[in-house]
Amino acid sequence: MRDAYQHQLDELSSSLADMCAHVATALEKATTALLGVNLQLAEEVISNDAIIDRSREHAERQAFALLALQAPVATDLRIVVAAIHGAGDIERMGDLALHIAQTARRRHPQPALPVEVAPYFAEMGRVGVALAAKAGEVIRTRDLARASELEADDDAMDDLHKHMFSVLMDRNWAHGIEAAVDITLLARFYERYADHAVAVARRIVYVVTGHMPGPVPS
Amino acid sequence: MRDAYQHQLDELSSSLADMCAHVATALEKATTALLGVNLQLAEEVISNDAIIDRSREHAERQAFALLALQAPVATDLRIVVAAIHGAGDIERMGDLALHIAQTARRRHPQPALPVEVAPYFAEMGRVGVALAAKAGEVIRTRDLARASELEADDDAMDDLHKHMFSVLMDRNWAHGIEAAVDITLLARFYERYADHAVAVARRIVYVVTGHMPGPVPS
Repeated sequence: MRDAYQHQLDELSSSLADMCAHVATALEKATTALLGVNLQLAEEVISNDAIIDRSREHAERQAFALLALQAPVATDLRIVVAAIHGAGDIERMGDLALHIAQTARRRHPQPALPVEVAPYFAEMGRVGVALAAKAGEVIRTRDLARASELEADDDAMDDLHKHMFSVLMDRNWAHGIEAAVDITLLARFYERYADHAVAVARRIVYVVTGHMPGPVPS
Repeated sequence: MRDAYQHQLDELSSSLADMCAHVATALEKATTALLGVNLQLAEEVISNDAIIDRSREHAERQAFALLALQAPVATDLRIVVAAIHGAGDIERMGDLALHIAQTARRRHPQPALPVEVAPYFAEMGRVGVALAAKAGEVIRTRDLARASELEADDDAMDDLHKHMFSVLMDRNWAHGIEAAVDITLLARFYERYADHAVAVARRIVYVVTGHMPGPVPS
């Protein structure tokens, strides 16, 4: 009985870590679709979002069953509550990758990004994918040192975001309003993706220590 | 004992409904600050966000205590799980109102909005405030007919959002990139605010029926 309970808790963490791997792949493909003007990859991200949504529902059902049947307390209860939050955050990361893929599709066969901002997005994609992978690792290992690394990675994302805006605000910007609107939203999607990865890691810190390390980034 | 338990459940719902009232006020003030170029109101929204953050922490502690000490099942468990989600959604609505107020403050004493888009934002503000108020009412009453009204209100928000973009994309747009970037993000903040209010109402439908009425809007 106790073994079955421990197994269910492990399964829940495993579901969430798998979701992190899925949304890392989604962001990687969405970024490649955006930079490489690749419609097929964009379509793949868009159709795979339903899988991430179902994974979230599955994780929520696992968490609900644990609460209803096992009435966990202390650390175990924190694991379940963190998983409820985490499933929401990770699903949202999938939605944000989806929005990036939808922008790539909407502009196809034109590139959505002028060449001078493409390197910023390549780097935001790289940082975002690394954040999702690290969040998954933190869920599996509950390694607090690793969890704190996500804060620095998120700062790197914020810096990229700011630099990119300075390019956009430059009076020599020659790509018009439509590209500026797309870039504004795309940059926001990457930034929010990173914020949700940080939120996932902070909830794991709470599982281990009983305290949240900081406010949810906004 | 049973009475104390019921009282705790009622207190939790009451905390969430109060949070809805706070974020409705925050959005109302942020919109007035934006449209009326009112720095004092903007500052008020910005400093009051910490109160909303604390309300969320309080609601989460209430939910955690209920799970740990009362081990609720069935509808009561759904109430607690919905409250955990709801507290997150409503806090995020407060963050979005905060971002609107921050934009008004950043542009002060200049207005952030050119006159031709101001009416769209006045209306998005009105719809957003009504959504938050309705979400609070749905939390208190669990009225499913009222809950379904939020879906139509959210459609109205989406329509406003789309119309506003058509103004922005018009080739006669004369307000430059910086205003376009601000407007793009501001419109996104209102739209997301509405999405979170809908998510809150959907979780109450789940409390009552045991089924989610639809995916979380994105």
